[in-house]
Amino acid sequence: MNTSDLPEHIRLSHGGGGQETQTLIREVFYRSFGNDILLQAEDSALFHLNNSAHIAMTTDSYTVSPRFFPGGNIGKIAVCGTCNDLAMVGAKPCYLSCGFIIEEGFAIAELRQIATSMASELSTNGCQLVTGDTKVVPRGGVDGIYINTTAVGECCFTPPPSSSSLKPGQVLLVSGNIGSHGAVIFCHREGIDVDSGMQSDCRSLWPVVHALLPFQREIVAMRDATRGGIAAVLHEWADQSETGIQIEASSVPVQNEVQGFCEMMGFEPWHLANEGTFVLAVEAQAAQAVLDILRKHRSSAAIIGQVIAEHPQRVILQTPWGTRSFMEPPTGELLPRIC
Amino acid sequence: MNTSDLPEHIRLSHGGGGQETQTLIREVFYRSFGNDILLQAEDSALFHLNNSAHIAMTTDSYTVSPRFFPGGNIGKIAVCGTCNDLAMVGAKPCYLSCGFIIEEGFAIAELRQIATSMASELSTNGCQLVTGDTKVVPRGGVDGIYINTTAVGECCFTPPPSSSSLKPGQVLLVSGNIGSHGAVIFCHREGIDVDSGMQSDCRSLWPVVHALLPFQREIVAMRDATRGGIAAVLHEWADQSETGIQIEASSVPVQNEVQGFCEMMGFEPWHLANEGTFVLAVEAQAAQAVLDILRKHRSSAAIIGQVIAEHPQRVILQTPWGTRSFMEPPTGELLPRIC
Repeated sequence: MNTSDLPEHIRLSHGGGGQETQTLIREVFYRSFGNDILLQAEDSALFHLNNSAHIAMTTDSYTVSPRFFPGGNIGKIAVCGTCNDLAMVGAKPCYLSCGFIIEEGFAIAELRQIATSMASELSTNGCQLVTGDTKVVPRGGVDGIYINTTAVGECCFTPPPSSSSLKPGQVLLVSGNIGSHGAVIFCHREGIDVDSGMQSDCRSLWPVVHALLPFQREIVAMRDATRGGIAAVLHEWADQSETGIQIEASSVPVQNEVQGFCEMMGFEPWHLANEGTFVLAVEAQAAQAVLDILRKHRSSAAIIGQVIAEHPQRVILQTPWGTRSFMEPPTGELLPRIC
Repeated sequence: MNTSDLPEHIRLSHGGGGQETQTLIREVFYRSFGNDILLQAEDSALFHLNNSAHIAMTTDSYTVSPRFFPGGNIGKIAVCGTCNDLAMVGAKPCYLSCGFIIEEGFAIAELRQIATSMASELSTNGCQLVTGDTKVVPRGGVDGIYINTTAVGECCFTPPPSSSSLKPGQVLLVSGNIGSHGAVIFCHREGIDVDSGMQSDCRSLWPVVHALLPFQREIVAMRDATRGGIAAVLHEWADQSETGIQIEASSVPVQNEVQGFCEMMGFEPWHLANEGTFVLAVEAQAAQAVLDILRKHRSSAAIIGQVIAEHPQRVILQTPWGTRSFMEPPTGELLPRIC
């Protein structure tokens, strides 16, 4: 064992987006690379370049399995996911880079399909792919195809939303039904037949964030709830801002099929990954107006709770029966290769 | 078979950096993503952002095997390689993103070594790692660790060097001995004992490019000679600029050990990969001054030839015995996972 909180070898949980991932980042990467910009620990880094106004930059690698799933594929998710990280700091996705690592023998027809999906989603974001890299590794060196995308964009929100600004009294919303991406991937991976029309929520968020621009001063924080689900976001926010967070369990929007899947499998929907659903913290007076805009894009958007002064750094779940419990943070490996 | 120049499945040669890679890029990626910036086809994309002066952006994924080799490791090469692509368009590397894809079971001590090498090389470039992503895939999903780095930087050369500007009479130089990275990786991969002190040339090029700034108007093009070696660069330049290129074979600097390796294995040194050696095209009147600066960084830098009007789009090799031949372009798979 090391003297740190890390074991000797990487575990799947180190990539799950939960506490083990945070430990790895803190103990290895922050120690080597710590600087003021990196340590902001937002979805995107913010900086100036060549006398520019604020620029945002973010990166993600995609290893999702299966590569094609109801609602998307690895190409669509590779553009959505990275552009969404820019949108979450109020930045317009402008330029994208793409690094493909492809296994020898991969079907070129499938590569074309992936590229076509990427191009379509780039268009939704008004973003251009400007530089790329292609590596081919011998059979067995990678499982099919992995894609890295990195994007830079122009910050449009002043000030940029930041999760360290949460204060008691602010209202929490989600942009739509939660958990569908995690449920869809799990079912396909495990061979569970889903004839319910369950679809991943995989989508680009810049269009709705752009519509929220008039409320840039009332929107305190935004975060897309990917690995670790909305539970990961809420716990990180409570932790960073040293406030408490209270969620009305019955207000959290979950599609019936996903709720059924959770009950059958013993999951909680707030631990399931999303790929186009985000959590917002907004000043109370703007909550209804923000909700109205969100609902023009997805009718299932909802107010789900509020920031409170009590229980700092904890997330409280309030049930319809008046009982309260702590929402468990996501831990363990959750579902590897979810994105 | 497709109607295009592509087979049905990806081959190792599609990642080799030679003609097959160009065909894949043209037939799949340019068709989906074609735009003015991407089609510049330089080492880095150039654009403006939030009212900035010119910004450069570039991406590369690293899958090198072995991960540790004489002269470097996958972490060092992941920072050098990407920062070098910025340097080649005269841009100072400023901000880097990093995406790790790590195999379950990977030793955390090794990850720390890799991160430490990256941090050291970032410091050489005066560049900061500002955003990252870590994915862990189950055993067998990746061979150890692959790293994507993407960098943005500030253009310092006006105009930016561009290989489409080559004109007859300009002089060609290399910044030092060629082929050592390819030779080292090949020997280690094949279990050939190298006790000769042969080392990869893996290094950061921004320091020497920065020293060349006073000659920014006389430096027409720069390109680091990675996959496909200097042959790939020279052929691409001849092709893009529709000029001929003439190289004096005896002037091309090759370390004795690498020359011996080539003779033993039947390779040509100009086809071997480099990871810190670049080719320059400069106006004739500045050639000696540029050479003097290059030699302050590596004494083996040399003038190797010139741009000519004859034989457009061909690369001519002139031997010490007065004979001439065409330099073969790199084709086939060369050596997979070279970087």
